[in-house]
Amino acid sequence: MELHLDGVGSLQRQIYSALRQRMESGVLAGGSRLPGSRLLARDLGVSRGTVVAAYEQLVAEGYCNARGRAATRVAQTLPRVRAHEGRRLPPAVPHAIRWRAGDDAFLFDLRSGLPNPADFPHAIWARLLRAKLKQHATAAFDYPHPEGLPQLRQAVASHLQQWRGLPCGPDRVLITHGSQQAFSLIARALLPAGLAVAVEDPGYHGFSQAVRAAGVAVRPVAVDDAGIMVDDIRHGDLSAVYVTPAHQFPTGVLMSAPRRRALLDWAENAGSWIIEDDYDSAYRFDAPPLAPLKQYDDTGRVLLVGSFSKTVFPDLRLGYVVAEPATIEVLSLLKNLDDAGSSGLYQAALAAFLDQGHYQRHLRRSLRHLARRRGALIDAVVEHFGDRARLLGAQSGLHIVVDVGLTAVQERELVRTARSHGLGLHALGAFSQSGMLRPGLLLGFGRLEEGSLQRAVALLHRLVLDVQRRDAGGRRET
Amino acid sequence: MELHLDGVGSLQRQIYSALRQRMESGVLAGGSRLPGSRLLARDLGVSRGTVVAAYEQLVAEGYCNARGRAATRVAQTLPRVRAHEGRRLPPAVPHAIRWRAGDDAFLFDLRSGLPNPADFPHAIWARLLRAKLKQHATAAFDYPHPEGLPQLRQAVASHLQQWRGLPCGPDRVLITHGSQQAFSLIARALLPAGLAVAVEDPGYHGFSQAVRAAGVAVRPVAVDDAGIMVDDIRHGDLSAVYVTPAHQFPTGVLMSAPRRRALLDWAENAGSWIIEDDYDSAYRFDAPPLAPLKQYDDTGRVLLVGSFSKTVFPDLRLGYVVAEPATIEVLSLLKNLDDAGSSGLYQAALAAFLDQGHYQRHLRRSLRHLARRRGALIDAVVEHFGDRARLLGAQSGLHIVVDVGLTAVQERELVRTARSHGLGLHALGAFSQSGMLRPGLLLGFGRLEEGSLQRAVALLHRLVLDVQRRDAGGRRET
Repeated sequence: MELHLDGVGSLQRQIYSALRQRMESGVLAGGSRLPGSRLLARDLGVSRGTVVAAYEQLVAEGYCNARGRAATRVAQTLPRVRAHEGRRLPPAVPHAIRWRAGDDAFLFDLRSGLPNPADFPHAIWARLLRAKLKQHATAAFDYPHPEGLPQLRQAVASHLQQWRGLPCGPDRVLITHGSQQAFSLIARALLPAGLAVAVEDPGYHGFSQAVRAAGVAVRPVAVDDAGIMVDDIRHGDLSAVYVTPAHQFPTGVLMSAPRRRALLDWAENAGSWIIEDDYDSAYRFDAPPLAPLKQYDDTGRVLLVGSFSKTVFPDLRLGYVVAEPATIEVLSLLKNLDDAGSSGLYQAALAAFLDQGHYQRHLRRSLRHLARRRGALIDAVVEHFGDRARLLGAQSGLHIVVDVGLTAVQERELVRTARSHGLGLHALGAFSQSGMLRPGLLLGFGRLEEGSLQRAVALLHRLVLDVQRRDAGGRRET
Repeated sequence: MELHLDGVGSLQRQIYSALRQRMESGVLAGGSRLPGSRLLARDLGVSRGTVVAAYEQLVAEGYCNARGRAATRVAQTLPRVRAHEGRRLPPAVPHAIRWRAGDDAFLFDLRSGLPNPADFPHAIWARLLRAKLKQHATAAFDYPHPEGLPQLRQAVASHLQQWRGLPCGPDRVLITHGSQQAFSLIARALLPAGLAVAVEDPGYHGFSQAVRAAGVAVRPVAVDDAGIMVDDIRHGDLSAVYVTPAHQFPTGVLMSAPRRRALLDWAENAGSWIIEDDYDSAYRFDAPPLAPLKQYDDTGRVLLVGSFSKTVFPDLRLGYVVAEPATIEVLSLLKNLDDAGSSGLYQAALAAFLDQGHYQRHLRRSLRHLARRRGALIDAVVEHFGDRARLLGAQSGLHIVVDVGLTAVQERELVRTARSHGLGLHALGAFSQSGMLRPGLLLGFGRLEEGSLQRAVALLHRLVLDVQRRDAGGRRET
């Protein structure tokens, strides 16, 4: 059983929640059999006692039945949650989506899709923030504008116009707390509960989970090397499709031009939204960034979502939605009810950072650093793995995907072993939306310097050989 | 017809939205008659053309029918909203809830429930923020903790323990973007859609609207001079009751001790939550702040919501929920899906502000300033209105309520006239949850100095006399 643990609380609680969520969502139907505790413990790499304890809790609460030595089964009728026990427990967020450096101590951490703090012009940022802090003293005593600070809306609109060729005015920009808030607002304000949303498979859990938490179903659609397979989304009642055209997350593929055209046509015919997540398009190495789908949007169906987490820093918690003014108005009404607007100080500093050209200079300089690291990573992969490694999604973004010839199950084992050797990495399987696993390892290069990247790949290579050897040995034994 | 306009966009759009919302929520049933355009225009103080245009839009979109000279009526079947036209348009936020100083230019603005920026120790704050900014450089490149910065959770817990006598550890504290985010998270994570939530009437729209936006119904319960009438909430299936026991918003009454006991008993019997909004309890003048209900909470049913908007500044966008650790965990999972956590810089500065005693010193000093202004305001009211004014809710908080003998309808007229004379104020009627209006004027004293407060009350007195005289004259004419 492929079980995503959310990394919150004890392992027992995580297993309990993940199973309960599957029962409540119907993935585990009434009467179906839970895997043996020994088997699940091995799969998850935890002690059997932990799994047994989680099962016992589910039995005690009426979610499962267990009779003597027979398998634990899902109850035909799940217990009704009492009013004060919570209502729509949001689906657990896999640990994989976002991490904090403090979460684990790694020697080499290839998990991150974030740039290196050392590349950022901290002195300039601190100067702008100090200047704004002075001007801010009185403004701080008002509630912020729910739709965003006017100067920042204007600065984002100008930036998109100049850098992405997007005709855009400030009334088309909503400032959000990163792209995550954009997803949550869009899901609740614009997506009817009765219709589903198509998502890329594999894809970004942060989107699907925000949508599910809003009571909206997601329908995974496979991604090939031209992006989401648009032919597969023609069917069914969908209110929206979520895509990452500039650098598919996590496979890294660029959506091809015919696929883009087909997607826009589909959306127009279906009367559906396209949610375009532009999360790291700024980092394209071989060519200028592709124009966003939004640029070809004649009917206001494309909601472009961007973030400054990867180009400034994530703690900024600022991102944006670009849409028609009427749509922005609906979203900002909901934002006002959600948090009464985002704090103006960071917004004011960011607007100055954009207006004074610091942001653009920072992007150009970062791109040079990142291209160097990316080159070192690819060279190391080629050096160690040679022909056995297939590279994907290396044209842009802050990670590449490498298929080194392991199965998805072996990769899961590799990720676990690597962890105990101080090497942090993710497998594509962790981002499956449908349960279907495809092999591939994500190697983030934004944070490590060349030397570290080379050592990390050398270690990875050794661990991959170990896994293959152990597996071959295991087969011989049985 | 009592119509709250949300202050967003043109007057025509506001009237259109307010009416459409009433139809969609069923307040205006199919077949019911809209008021004549001339009548509504007079009520709202807008031109008749504006109302006619809003009606025409509703007819054009199928929300209403109009035949020749007959009254405009609500359609029996409302048009189905198309997928891409938005789903759950959040109910409009009345202008009244939060204002920005820039919204209108007032000579004397008595609308605010916020303190004066001049009272805040800006230099200390700037110093703390600069210090944190230096330490923050690397931390900024990680995503924040969704449940809040550990230091701030600890600082809030210690503060509540020392100042409110609340036994509280950091695992019982969730840091939110102000109390508004607390309401939105609570509504979606803990309140089942099938049950209603009791709210105070009159009461805070920011709460009811967040709850309604989550698809949960609110049930208004009247407030008398001992707080919410607990006997009236005994009936029906309620998942929660929302109260402001320390200083009822907007009437300002303190919830009596027997009423508190009765409310806690009710919640225990009903198995419901109590959402305790502690929005300005820090400002109590005649006695130390009352202990929160949460202090008497044996069963984890009370969710204490606090905010730093009124004691530090609103642009900080920081508040908190105090609840059992398991409840905090559920809320923080949803917060993670909503915005991936609040930015750490302001949190770090606020934690230092609390830990180093600056917050507590600021509160003590503010209380002295506020007591002086409150005294000046009350003196001026007594001087000008004498026995004809009844004072309510003056023991604490940043506003008082005065009943000067006008009817609720006259008060609405007064608010409009006052606006055109440069005097900003609110009437209690603007905070009605049920449509029932009770007279009373809110006079905020946090921002104005003594001289201004005296002149503002003198102007108010003159305008009240005008309204009474005009009304008496009007009656003679008819």
